[in-house]
Amino acid sequence: MLTCNKDRIQNKIETFATFGDAGHGGITRFSLSEEALMARAEFVKRMKAVGVETVTDDMANMYATLPGTEDTLPKIVMASHCDSVRNGGNYDGILGVITALEVVETIALEKIPHRHPITAMIWTNEEGSLYPPAMMSSGVVCGKFDKVKMLSSKSPEGKTFGEALQQSGYVGDEANRLNPKDYMSMLEMHIEQGPVLEAEKKQIGVVEGVVGMINYRIRTYGQSDHAGTTPMPYRRDALLAAASALKYLHEQLDKLDINLVYTTGEIFCHPCVHTVIPDLVDFSLDARHQDPEVIKQVVKIIKNMPKEFDKCEVKYQEAWARNTIEFNEELVGFVQKSADAYGYTSRKMYSGAGHDAQYVAGMMPTTMIFVPSKDGHSHCEPEFTSVEDCLQGINVVLQTVLEIDKK
Amino acid sequence: MLTCNKDRIQNKIETFATFGDAGHGGITRFSLSEEALMARAEFVKRMKAVGVETVTDDMANMYATLPGTEDTLPKIVMASHCDSVRNGGNYDGILGVITALEVVETIALEKIPHRHPITAMIWTNEEGSLYPPAMMSSGVVCGKFDKVKMLSSKSPEGKTFGEALQQSGYVGDEANRLNPKDYMSMLEMHIEQGPVLEAEKKQIGVVEGVVGMINYRIRTYGQSDHAGTTPMPYRRDALLAAASALKYLHEQLDKLDINLVYTTGEIFCHPCVHTVIPDLVDFSLDARHQDPEVIKQVVKIIKNMPKEFDKCEVKYQEAWARNTIEFNEELVGFVQKSADAYGYTSRKMYSGAGHDAQYVAGMMPTTMIFVPSKDGHSHCEPEFTSVEDCLQGINVVLQTVLEIDKK
Repeated sequence: MLTCNKDRIQNKIETFATFGDAGHGGITRFSLSEEALMARAEFVKRMKAVGVETVTDDMANMYATLPGTEDTLPKIVMASHCDSVRNGGNYDGILGVITALEVVETIALEKIPHRHPITAMIWTNEEGSLYPPAMMSSGVVCGKFDKVKMLSSKSPEGKTFGEALQQSGYVGDEANRLNPKDYMSMLEMHIEQGPVLEAEKKQIGVVEGVVGMINYRIRTYGQSDHAGTTPMPYRRDALLAAASALKYLHEQLDKLDINLVYTTGEIFCHPCVHTVIPDLVDFSLDARHQDPEVIKQVVKIIKNMPKEFDKCEVKYQEAWARNTIEFNEELVGFVQKSADAYGYTSRKMYSGAGHDAQYVAGMMPTTMIFVPSKDGHSHCEPEFTSVEDCLQGINVVLQTVLEIDKK
Repeated sequence: MLTCNKDRIQNKIETFATFGDAGHGGITRFSLSEEALMARAEFVKRMKAVGVETVTDDMANMYATLPGTEDTLPKIVMASHCDSVRNGGNYDGILGVITALEVVETIALEKIPHRHPITAMIWTNEEGSLYPPAMMSSGVVCGKFDKVKMLSSKSPEGKTFGEALQQSGYVGDEANRLNPKDYMSMLEMHIEQGPVLEAEKKQIGVVEGVVGMINYRIRTYGQSDHAGTTPMPYRRDALLAAASALKYLHEQLDKLDINLVYTTGEIFCHPCVHTVIPDLVDFSLDARHQDPEVIKQVVKIIKNMPKEFDKCEVKYQEAWARNTIEFNEELVGFVQKSADAYGYTSRKMYSGAGHDAQYVAGMMPTTMIFVPSKDGHSHCEPEFTSVEDCLQGINVVLQTVLEIDKK
């Protein structure tokens, strides 16, 4: 079987880890920052080294295309992002870029015959760490977000994304954007960001889609009074009520399908003073599952929740929702076939996290490949995937590209 | 029976409400602010009108003393504060100052015979709204706080209390401080700030002391992971654990004495992002009761709390504590006797809130008189006590002063 080069992969992991090195094992590399521009320059340099030029589009997305023997055919693209969250790890996003580089290099250096042009791509601002929202550029290119609105997105320091884009020197032609006429398929390799593959000792995650999710806000309304002067029977404590509502929701939701994940991660309390009984508490409920029927059950539990806990009124509001995204069945099959061909252990799974691939999936055949995350950690400095695991995933991508190339 | 003047009291309430009028029924009058200086000038003016001069001490506390027939006798003082919290009401603190003014005016104008000098007093910076801590000047005068440290207390804008003090023009001689040689007793009239008097249809609260309190921090330690990629069985959710611990504490504490008040008013969650499982939650537990044995039971419940909820470690830490302050029994008896003499309904009670009187109680015989708070509200603009209720309380203070004067 064809295989990519472990040492070359290790070298890429180490090199990219220097761009934004936070000094204790991880990186901070916001989109279009100086550190991100160093990562982009490295991408250009490595592609140039195998004779491949890089172009950009109007959102500074980068495309390095290795010609095929039939250049009129649409291209096969591998893409991910090189930006990170604050104090993130060395794998989220960048491993997909390293994969794209490594596959193009392997095909170029090994002179592996292929009919279609093959593109390594970087999406701008996937994390949205400085300039929200996340998946900004794939959202614009795939028609989910309005570009003008995105250009005015501001960093906490007040700089607009549009200014950062202009200053980056990477703005290119809108005509270069990823599109379903010039491109036939997109693959995104990513770390799992969860503990399942590691726990089940599986080498490859064959990703079938991105789970649908809902996000609700739950609010409890009490009465603010003095902690020292208000006897207990007179109290309407919004934080006690929120604790009761939160426990109730956990107990009810735990009865649903085992694959449901839900999180009450954010809580705000007013006035949040130790000598005052809280009068308003607001917490979030994020729930995800691939089956819309399970999501409906979650919504039913929220809607049937008691209207009052501990003498406090409880209200809910949907903040936002997205449907499950199904990846292209044929591509998912190619990934499975490729993993099997190498003899790698694998399991089918849905992505619980959002990725640029979910927007591209609405435009052209798309899928993703996952590799294990040590202890399931991600978006933090301990994020780690062994180079062996990376190599296996990258080999699957290489093989999948060659399978698509046969079409 | 002697009585103070309702119209004059109403006029004082209305006049003081203009100093810092927030425009919707309440005031913002931080200590030593322009608005507070206007209230101080009004105090000086009203005392001058009945022939009484005002002096100040080194903490800008104000003293207006009406001579008695035996000026070598120690003085009887009535004191409270004229500063407020942000968007506070028209009664907290200032009603005690209005009481002191009204009693001195009544005695002066009605030429009521009295042997001891009688002092109306204003304490500087009781709320500590701009310059923490609360009860700053009574703390300094009564030896609880270090003056030099207090002078360096900073407002959010970076101004020190010492600077504000100098700029106020109210700094006087340290020799003028309230002290147990020159003063025999202190009375502080205050709104109840709770709902008990109103609910029980009592006109006067005969205050026996200030309840002891403890303040604990409860922390839960979980594991921060991605909301979308971490299956439920792998999670250690610190907010779920905090909700469980909070509910557990409420359930256990509810079994203790009915007069115990306890509050879980403050909560912090990390990282507090709707897509991340919380790894650290910290909440406060404030508990108050006049009987130290009940406070011991509270501490026992905290210490015997399970060490783990929902797979998260739970820890507790005492933030601070204060013992119950008992007011002077003889003075409490005089207040009760005075209320009875007018035929006012009354009940004995402890103050759940802190007051300057609690520090003074360690230095000389001290007590407090409460009047009802509408709906129990305080530290907010709807704070209200009818002028009839105020008059009754002020009459009780007048009568109590005359009882003390007989000693």
